[in-house]
Amino acid sequence: MAGTADQLPTRRPGGRTARVRAQILAATVELVARNGIAGFRYEEVAELAGVHKTSVYRNWADREELVVEALLQYVDDLGSVADTGDLRRDLVDFLMVLSEGLGRPTVRALEQATQATHESPAVRRAATRIFEERAAAMRRRIELAMARGELPPVDYSLFGEMISGPVHLIVNRGLRPFTRADAERIVDLVLAGVRATTPHT
Amino acid sequence: MAGTADQLPTRRPGGRTARVRAQILAATVELVARNGIAGFRYEEVAELAGVHKTSVYRNWADREELVVEALLQYVDDLGSVADTGDLRRDLVDFLMVLSEGLGRPTVRALEQATQATHESPAVRRAATRIFEERAAAMRRRIELAMARGELPPVDYSLFGEMISGPVHLIVNRGLRPFTRADAERIVDLVLAGVRATTPHT
Repeated sequence: MAGTADQLPTRRPGGRTARVRAQILAATVELVARNGIAGFRYEEVAELAGVHKTSVYRNWADREELVVEALLQYVDDLGSVADTGDLRRDLVDFLMVLSEGLGRPTVRALEQATQATHESPAVRRAATRIFEERAAAMRRRIELAMARGELPPVDYSLFGEMISGPVHLIVNRGLRPFTRADAERIVDLVLAGVRATTPHT
Repeated sequence: MAGTADQLPTRRPGGRTARVRAQILAATVELVARNGIAGFRYEEVAELAGVHKTSVYRNWADREELVVEALLQYVDDLGSVADTGDLRRDLVDFLMVLSEGLGRPTVRALEQATQATHESPAVRRAATRIFEERAAAMRRRIELAMARGELPPVDYSLFGEMISGPVHLIVNRGLRPFTRADAERIVDLVLAGVRATTPHT
């Protein structure tokens, strides 16, 4: 039984040490998601993980390494862009995975770590790298769509920001649920806008 | 000389008391913007404001009241939507004011206070009310545009989220500067998308 992306690797070889490490990483993610990195202390991590404080220090002498390793576990929760051959469906599916991810503390912590005002350059670099990998998957999907004539030439970065920006805003505010109908309206509007504003050659 | 929205009311009638209150409010905004509300302590506010801790307690026995009053000073920094008769220009101008605002600690603090995960319901309600007022200004501008035939019938909420979502994402990530060209491309794409996807009657 291999672990899925949503499970912590509590049973990997290594026994008790590995289990303690996994508990510490899970506690770190929870605290960072709750209070940000500025508000997180080793004492709290140890308490929440149910381990001695020395276990935290012994495994991660450096705060930033602890945070980075904790966040990197959740890369897969960010979702990627599939290729079923149907661009609209693939983008709508991606927005749904993104909206569910943004509702989870793990992904929220990753998201917060990418903020320009983030106090730790090392943590921000690690989090940004994760989002860049996701952006690269979007870029490959858009390139395929352009090669197939589904889409005129577009600016990948802005295209990605146009479809995912509203999702971030809606989910983060939390004033209304994000639905599949929202995802479809966003994708349809952006696709129609791209087609209407790009001169066909 | 009336104070502008960007100045603290340091000279309003009341002399020393008013000045102390203004210093405390400014310090609170700075700390909330830096560490979030969970990380902010009265001792730090007093130190940053250069006042005695008792001055903070005497004026605001309640933490949340202090935060709400501090944030409410900056409502005007959020920008509103003008009506010059040129919808595209008004929306582009609005996105530029928004992008500049999101780069300031005051507006960032307001923004963070609206997050669904925010720990204080009272603070979140106050911050959300501010953003709702701004959304109402957008709604009035869109209604005017529809009445003038500049725009087909649209969903106000989604329209606002579609144009401001990408701005939040770009400015918060801080990976590249937000330019007027970005604002123009976002507005043009959304306007074209709305016109292409709304059936004309």
